[in-house]
Amino acid sequence: MVSNIIRNQEKTGKFSIGIDLGGTKIGTALVNGEGDIKEYIKHPTNAQQGKDVVINRIKQTIYQVINKSRVNLDNIKGIGIGVPGPIDARIGIVYSAPNLPGWEGVPICRIIENEFRVPVFLENDANAAAWGEKIFGVAKGVKDMICLTLGTGIGGGLIFDGKIYHGNKFAAGEIGHVIVNKDGPACNCGGSGCLEAYSSATGIRDRIVDLTKKVNNSTGENISKIDIDNLSLADIFKRARQGDPLVKDIVTDAIEYLGVGITILVNLLNPKMVVLVGGIANEGDNLLIPVKKFVFSRAMKIMLEDLQIVLGNLREKAGVMGAAALLWHIEET
Amino acid sequence: MVSNIIRNQEKTGKFSIGIDLGGTKIGTALVNGEGDIKEYIKHPTNAQQGKDVVINRIKQTIYQVINKSRVNLDNIKGIGIGVPGPIDARIGIVYSAPNLPGWEGVPICRIIENEFRVPVFLENDANAAAWGEKIFGVAKGVKDMICLTLGTGIGGGLIFDGKIYHGNKFAAGEIGHVIVNKDGPACNCGGSGCLEAYSSATGIRDRIVDLTKKVNNSTGENISKIDIDNLSLADIFKRARQGDPLVKDIVTDAIEYLGVGITILVNLLNPKMVVLVGGIANEGDNLLIPVKKFVFSRAMKIMLEDLQIVLGNLREKAGVMGAAALLWHIEET
Repeated sequence: MVSNIIRNQEKTGKFSIGIDLGGTKIGTALVNGEGDIKEYIKHPTNAQQGKDVVINRIKQTIYQVINKSRVNLDNIKGIGIGVPGPIDARIGIVYSAPNLPGWEGVPICRIIENEFRVPVFLENDANAAAWGEKIFGVAKGVKDMICLTLGTGIGGGLIFDGKIYHGNKFAAGEIGHVIVNKDGPACNCGGSGCLEAYSSATGIRDRIVDLTKKVNNSTGENISKIDIDNLSLADIFKRARQGDPLVKDIVTDAIEYLGVGITILVNLLNPKMVVLVGGIANEGDNLLIPVKKFVFSRAMKIMLEDLQIVLGNLREKAGVMGAAALLWHIEET
Repeated sequence: MVSNIIRNQEKTGKFSIGIDLGGTKIGTALVNGEGDIKEYIKHPTNAQQGKDVVINRIKQTIYQVINKSRVNLDNIKGIGIGVPGPIDARIGIVYSAPNLPGWEGVPICRIIENEFRVPVFLENDANAAAWGEKIFGVAKGVKDMICLTLGTGIGGGLIFDGKIYHGNKFAAGEIGHVIVNKDGPACNCGGSGCLEAYSSATGIRDRIVDLTKKVNNSTGENISKIDIDNLSLADIFKRARQGDPLVKDIVTDAIEYLGVGITILVNLLNPKMVVLVGGIANEGDNLLIPVKKFVFSRAMKIMLEDLQIVLGNLREKAGVMGAAALLWHIEET
């Protein structure tokens, strides 16, 4: 297959390919060392077709970005993959991925290396997003930073002393499962009162559904006019700002508990920067201003001296660019 | 002064001197590379006499352990100091120490180096205790570990990838100021609902005093027979076990919130080991068993796979041995 690659009009320089493997989409980007995306494509994952089909699809997307970009294969220095689930970055194995059926113990690095004959690096998707913001985004040059991915769930990436921190079993960074209220609602992780249960999109929606049921039950009639399935997160935040009693307190809780979570991170880890990415971060200042207000009123003075809490600036490309940048991580150290 | 040191009967090998500078006591130990304490002395700090007197006292204690041990000065490879307050380990400066009047911007490493002509290392006292358990204690050989110092306050040391993690402003590890209840009582740090307000000796005592006042006010008479000032922490835990209504719930809270705090650490940082040291850790299994039960029922499965929660085994010497071991940290890396 390698021989199929168009070899005329070749571009020189150092390039890397990043893959953001999600439950619904595969994003693939060809990136240079300055973080310029030379080519980007997105395909449906069709995860239900099984592991082998998805792996072939990944290979195809890699061939596509190479072909479209007309970069000489010799100038592709590596490939990085971000995967939503527990992995071992050192040995390049995906242990499992809840949204990707069949992905259990997959030696993805070896599989892709065998096809393209370049080094392949693996990371958890939240770590990849953090690394993207660290190498190419808002946290460029920052040694100690924490990235929160605020979406359907809440994940996180911890960058300590300029490196991704993995923990003992490569599982560190589960910011969504920091307990913010020990008597809070049950969480998918088996615990309860986790940040994710309050401040993720799923947490917010679930709490609105629960409250709606309670209100309807207690009044004996269907007073709720909220059609939760057709309401975007942006709509929910807007309704809260307009004072809708059914969502206001829940959104207030979401923001305040996110403040609690970040205060915990700040007092514990003394980062220079906390970066918010993901769908909920699209709320921008509506989210950032009250969260900062909470953290700056509650965290220790010494931790606040040189702290920045900011939105990421790579948006939905953080993961794919971070995956591409895994190569430079290795080369630098 | 160096010439005053007794030079007969000299011991050879590599030795280090550790100093645990506290608000009330200065502990000084001469330790070999295997972690055997060859000499140990403890003096009152008399901190109110001021910085210069205390610095001289530190020098005297160093001379004393050297003289008593009869170790050849050439075999003393370094000195380490643990200080209760914000410091910069890199440049060897104590920024401040709440319990040591006058200790502001003190270049303690340079001062001690000028006297003894060996490398001098500085750490925050909680980091020193963590390092002691890591190099000589229960966490020997463990790369990712977290040490909680449970005493008057609650501090912590974070060991990531085999090194002390300092954070951006050398302030990381304030485990006592992890928020465990956002609506909880005010904390000395300026925040509220911190772990320290529930699970430190001061937190437990303050809450008992508050509850006693409330009970006495509401009944209009002094039903409380607790003389809090003359009650040891061990007495308080014992009374709780016996069912004393005035302390039972408060001790239960202290243990449960400690469980919350450790669950937060475990889900966030995926350590291999969590080590409990300090006065409250002397409760042993009475503390350890319920705390482990909480964490193992609430933390994520993947984080629990290879997790140990244990008591430190250096007891009150963790800090002084960790200070001594700072030398080997530097030599090893």
